Amino acid sequence: MNDEFALIARLFAPLATHPAARGLKDDAALWTLAGPTVMTCDAIVEGMHFLPEDPIETVAQKALRVNFSDLAAKGAKPEGVLISLIWPQHRPAAEMAAFAAGLAEDLAAFDCALLGGDTAATSGPLTVSTMAFGRAFGGRSPARWDAVPGQDVWVTGTIGDGTLGLAAARGRLTASADDAAFLVDRYRRPRPRCAFAETIAALAGAAMDVSDGLIGDARKLAAASGLSVVLDPALAPLSPEARRLLASGETSLAALLTGGDDYEILFTADPPKAPALQAAALRLGLGLTLIGHTAAGEGVRALLPDGQDLGREGGGFVHQFGA
Amino acid sequence: MNDEFALIARLFAPLATHPAARGLKDDAALWTLAGPTVMTCDAIVEGMHFLPEDPIETVAQKALRVNFSDLAAKGAKPEGVLISLIWPQHRPAAEMAAFAAGLAEDLAAFDCALLGGDTAATSGPLTVSTMAFGRAFGGRSPARWDAVPGQDVWVTGTIGDGTLGLAAARGRLTASADDAAFLVDRYRRPRPRCAFAETIAALAGAAMDVSDGLIGDARKLAAASGLSVVLDPALAPLSPEARRLLASGETSLAALLTGGDDYEILFTADPPKAPALQAAALRLGLGLTLIGHTAAGEGVRALLPDGQDLGREGGGFVHQFGA
Repeated sequence: MNDEFALIARLFAPLATHPAARGLKDDAALWTLAGPTVMTCDAIVEGMHFLPEDPIETVAQKALRVNFSDLAAKGAKPEGVLISLIWPQHRPAAEMAAFAAGLAEDLAAFDCALLGGDTAATSGPLTVSTMAFGRAFGGRSPARWDAVPGQDVWVTGTIGDGTLGLAAARGRLTASADDAAFLVDRYRRPRPRCAFAETIAALAGAAMDVSDGLIGDARKLAAASGLSVVLDPALAPLSPEARRLLASGETSLAALLTGGDDYEILFTADPPKAPALQAAALRLGLGLTLIGHTAAGEGVRALLPDGQDLGREGGGFVHQFGA
Repeated sequence: MNDEFALIARLFAPLATHPAARGLKDDAALWTLAGPTVMTCDAIVEGMHFLPEDPIETVAQKALRVNFSDLAAKGAKPEGVLISLIWPQHRPAAEMAAFAAGLAEDLAAFDCALLGGDTAATSGPLTVSTMAFGRAFGGRSPARWDAVPGQDVWVTGTIGDGTLGLAAARGRLTASADDAAFLVDRYRRPRPRCAFAETIAALAGAAMDVSDGLIGDARKLAAASGLSVVLDPALAPLSPEARRLLASGETSLAALLTGGDDYEILFTADPPKAPALQAAALRLGLGLTLIGHTAAGEGVRALLPDGQDLGREGGGFVHQFGA
């Protein structure tokens, strides 16, 4: 036991460079928070949120990124994380070095401090529970219920790559090697839109991250705001890879818009904000697409050309306690 | 899946009464805190930190209390928690209501806000990962390395009840029904010394919570502070229950001082602080015992009457990343 934890100390303590972390050598961190702070926590479980064969450094990165995605959608930049690493007894301790390397890379890339954490052994699957926090830009954090009728509905990036990547990683997708590699990477390493958080804080009405399928998450936003979200499936932003698989019949628009693991930001904004939103996205080189609008009523309407309403289907599952 | 999570929403959302929690209905909490904030995270795993047959409401309480104990030792009061609940697929969802009830009871008792959390299903053991934070009283948080030679060494409460309680819960202890019940409860529901946190912040040199055995934890404090901790085992505070089992030969002083699960506070203080410390403990009705002193050197010395030095033994294991 002591040897294992000496290894952990050697691997993780060097990542905790912020003075508040106390080098991970104390029982707690001492952080000075100023102003409104967004806090979130999300765990990922092997076999549930990632695959047992996923490279371990991408597991560390996914653990961080799913949390950073929540912060971004709430208009905040990641400032600090605390991590509980529940490590299977049978998994080689040597893999922890690769886990720490993946963590270090992302902490640097996202400019986020590792403030603490703990480890425990388990007879079950690898589980990484992360708590992340960050200051809300401008002191405001858009909620799911901040939409009003008559707003535009936007989404960042592309939709459907995560669910295709999961299928590809499981060998359940016929795709070119290049397309499969791109999609699997999107599944394993989501791209939280942290760069867009400040714009979200300034210009969005309601906002949330899309992690459980665009349609299902839009339904949650509609329910929280007490209105209807009307989406045009034809406008949904797809990657060239997803378009090719759609064209070859390997997937369907319904599958792309109801699959999970997108980690994009879905938000509403008053129509006059459109030019400022598009300018900000252009400046960042980030895809941003107008996909619909809000209206009085309830639920989601998303009509396909054949008359099928994706909004009426199931789709979307829930991780969060109260959501 | 959706039914299960609707249940969770129904059970946990009512506990999140602080406005910052947004009723657990958003993706994140928005907390406003000014000043130095102590943050910690500790996970408990079924079969590792609690027993599969432990009443589920005590599991919720232990998950909170082991974190509150860290905050208390760092001179902070619990203000908020975020919880990742990793629930075994085979465990009845009905037990979640009892888990939530245990959580609610302790959140109220410790005046702490539930700010967020998530749930996931697992094929492995029940795991509860908790992140807790609180403002440091007076802006100071004693570290493990804040001891200097010539200080008194103190410990709160009693030592050894947790490890005896674990043995009793496993049926490995011959004790009266009353004694066993008391000890098992101490194992399942630690008593974090939150009421003493303000005194710790004001008067302690180094401080840490005792969770991995008094001797082993004293060794960590000694190593962090670069000095020697000299303990008198005969002074270690024992409950009447532990004293009876010591007298009957069911346990040994070595076992009590090296076992874990005490969740008391071990700290140092300058000798002139003794009257103020004792007055504060008396006012709170909290046991507080002078058990030794710090000196130049390294490691722990804890001589038994037979000449055995408990400080030379192993004892104590490590949960924390860097500790």
